[in-house]
Amino acid sequence: MSPHSPAPAAYHTLDTDGIRAFLAGVPALAARLGGPAAHWRIREVSDGNLNNVFLIDGPQCGVCFKQSLPHVRVDPAWKMPLDRTFYEAAYLREIRPCVGALTTDILHFDPDLYVLVVESLDRHVVLRRGLMAGGDWPDAARAVGEFVAHGTFRTSLLAAPFEEITHRLDVFSGNRTLTRITVDLILTDPYRDHPRNHWISPELDSIAAEIRTDPRVRRRVGAMQARFLTCRQALLHGDLHTGSIMVSDDDTRVIDGEFACPGPIGFDCGLFIGNLLLHLFACRDSGGQDRAVRNIVQFWTSFHDTFLELWRTSARQDGNGDAYATTLFRNDPSGLRQAQADFMQDVTTDTIAFAAMEVIRRLVGYAHVPDFDTIPDLAARAGRQGAALALARDLLADPGLVTSIADLASLARDRTG
Amino acid sequence: MSPHSPAPAAYHTLDTDGIRAFLAGVPALAARLGGPAAHWRIREVSDGNLNNVFLIDGPQCGVCFKQSLPHVRVDPAWKMPLDRTFYEAAYLREIRPCVGALTTDILHFDPDLYVLVVESLDRHVVLRRGLMAGGDWPDAARAVGEFVAHGTFRTSLLAAPFEEITHRLDVFSGNRTLTRITVDLILTDPYRDHPRNHWISPELDSIAAEIRTDPRVRRRVGAMQARFLTCRQALLHGDLHTGSIMVSDDDTRVIDGEFACPGPIGFDCGLFIGNLLLHLFACRDSGGQDRAVRNIVQFWTSFHDTFLELWRTSARQDGNGDAYATTLFRNDPSGLRQAQADFMQDVTTDTIAFAAMEVIRRLVGYAHVPDFDTIPDLAARAGRQGAALALARDLLADPGLVTSIADLASLARDRTG
Ligand SMILES: Nc1ncnc2c1ncn2[C@@H]1O[C@H](COP(=O)(O)OP(=O)(O)OP(=O)(O)O)[C@@H](O)[C@H]1O
Ligand SMILES: Nc1ncnc2c1ncn2[C@@H]1O[C@H](COP(=O)(O)OP(=O)(O)OP(=O)(O)O)[C@@H](O)[C@H]1O
Ligand SMILES: [Mg+2]
Ligand SMILES: [Mg+2]
Repeated sequence: MSPHSPAPAAYHTLDTDGIRAFLAGVPALAARLGGPAAHWRIREVSDGNLNNVFLIDGPQCGVCFKQSLPHVRVDPAWKMPLDRTFYEAAYLREIRPCVGALTTDILHFDPDLYVLVVESLDRHVVLRRGLMAGGDWPDAARAVGEFVAHGTFRTSLLAAPFEEITHRLDVFSGNRTLTRITVDLILTDPYRDHPRNHWISPELDSIAAEIRTDPRVRRRVGAMQARFLTCRQALLHGDLHTGSIMVSDDDTRVIDGEFACPGPIGFDCGLFIGNLLLHLFACRDSGGQDRAVRNIVQFWTSFHDTFLELWRTSARQDGNGDAYATTLFRNDPSGLRQAQADFMQDVTTDTIAFAAMEVIRRLVGYAHVPDFDTIPDLAARAGRQGAALALARDLLADPGLVTSIADLASLARDRTG
Repeated sequence: MSPHSPAPAAYHTLDTDGIRAFLAGVPALAARLGGPAAHWRIREVSDGNLNNVFLIDGPQCGVCFKQSLPHVRVDPAWKMPLDRTFYEAAYLREIRPCVGALTTDILHFDPDLYVLVVESLDRHVVLRRGLMAGGDWPDAARAVGEFVAHGTFRTSLLAAPFEEITHRLDVFSGNRTLTRITVDLILTDPYRDHPRNHWISPELDSIAAEIRTDPRVRRRVGAMQARFLTCRQALLHGDLHTGSIMVSDDDTRVIDGEFACPGPIGFDCGLFIGNLLLHLFACRDSGGQDRAVRNIVQFWTSFHDTFLELWRTSARQDGNGDAYATTLFRNDPSGLRQAQADFMQDVTTDTIAFAAMEVIRRLVGYAHVPDFDTIPDLAARAGRQGAALALARDLLADPGLVTSIADLASLARDRTG
């Protein structure tokens, strides 16, 4: 059935009893959990805005159960179609063959109940929470960079002919509800007066107003709106903040691909870096700040090097992508290097702008991040947020301010004071 | 039915008797033609590469009948799906409400026979033929600019929310066969050794080789391949050469939208300007050259001014496009002007590069233009073509060579010698 049909009559929100019965009714899931259904332990872990999420532990194994609600979880008055788990499942199907164990395996999708069941990551913590607690996962940023590189390269016209890529991207044009949220909450609202916007007031009133009224910011934001909506470089995760990463001592996974959409690769990179910047500004110890800077640089290096290596390998193996066609650069490695540098310069430019826009929307828009909650003193918190906002504003106002991610990271470090 | 189903059993290529019976069987068409079917005069006018085209005159009125063949018309060994008239019909349905009488009205589409029937333009001549004969249509270039402006603005994210635009563009992702021809013949083949390439040899051997081997050209061409395939600014005509325009003393129409696809607006502009450049280099009298330059400038001025006026009007009327959202620029006319200048600079850059690529593919690729046939002397013809190729090469090699269409036109005029 089409993901846009009205909620099927069969849909209802499952409680723990319903979840138990549902899982018991899917033989592969019941077998995976093991033992009698009555022995399964079910606990809710929903901590996001949108969906119900439960972890179920059986004697043998655990699974993670996610169900769309007909409204925003944290705001039942905000009605919403159910199809977001459909797109999360579709994204996992596309991306899992490209990224392997950097995301979760999809175990089941139920199109009537909009239930998605994936591997349970019960040894893992959410990266944002872990970073806020002062933890360090030295490999996490590298792994996320690898995830973005594989996922975007393999769904781009660099990797395959348009006949194989375009219709796969077009499926995600249907993810209208969540794309509308991105367009409104990230790309538009913070740059206009809107009742959804809020910030620490009055401390941040003036910087919020400056962001709304600076003509250089507006000019750039308009262009980034167009870029997000018209530049279909690859299949994006679409919501790659530090809350969409789960980490353990030796493993990193990207979860929650429900915002998947075609778009510019720098959008995924920018969201992740934007959230690392927010964490950096929320850190008051220089150790934490150093780690935040290191994470930004490691993420980018990993993404950049992996992406370009995939591209070189494809070119060596006579890959048949239609963009920067291999036949152009056969026997011309220096031409290929130049083309790659041009391409990456555009991704870098997008990344910096989208990172700045993510910082802004997380401090003056609708959905804030908890990272600054670690600063108990309100004036200090507002000071840090103001510094982050001023950096973001400057990045948008002056595209020449930094032109590499390394420069971005060190400027940000300087600005944390 | 889906345009990708295999040729339906009902499909067969209609001869003149078949066409007569077909039209007689569609009451609206029979009524429009008038009189008994036996009196209708039917003549073939196919002069393109792909389809059968006939004009039918009845006592009251005429119609134009176009049918896809299961192969390329001029090369029956080159098999091809039938769906191109489906996309031409879909394009007309999209675009006709935006451009009015700048294209033809669609009178009928038959999805089994892949027959498209449109208004007959029997007072009109094909612009390319008219220009080659030394004719002058002072309003034609302006009308084509208006066509491109309306057709692309109204199918862009500047005009409406993505929910209204994206799925309409996605339909044309299905136009794979003809998009593949564009990718291969325009964007790829001329830049590699390919048996389909040909040129006046040996006179143009060295410039053709320079184009294939110049690393600066390759670098630019790779980027333009990516731009064509990933930048979905609007619904394009996709084949806007001077053979797709029909003109009379007081009327200009764009025909043959079978290559319609989503893409960068500069692709349509570049194809049209590229063909005007080819005509310019084929002209030996300074009157003809002046007219060619004037047509380039008038086309661009008309496109540019009309497009920006549509945008300003939309902004004034609180249009709800998601790119460069109106809410950003309310009460900021100078910000809007700046955004428009940024946007148009990108379109200009694309236009210049695609114009250069069109010149190249029409002189060293598979499908040449007849414009130079007016030069009987082979050496002179090769000389003019070589000058056009050298200009195109320089435009691709050095993106800074010209940065406006006015400069492009005058450089080209200088280079005609
Ligand atoms: N596979 C999993 N294994 C273990 N825990 C998980 C798994 N997936 C999600 N969780 C937990 O559930 C929480 C919510 O999951 P998720 O982010 O997918 O939900 P959401 O409703 O889409 O949230 P958001 O508002 O961020 O979009 C996560 O923060 C995490 O703590
Ligand atoms: N509506 C019309 N009225 C009168 N003549 C027309 C009309 N449409 C097309 N023609 C004539 O038929 C010719 C072929 O039409 P058209 O360009 O649409 O065919 P095609 O097979 O798609 O050609 P191409 O190879 O250029 O794609 C035109 O050059 C023109 O002379
Ligand atoms: Mg989510
Ligand atoms: Mg045609």
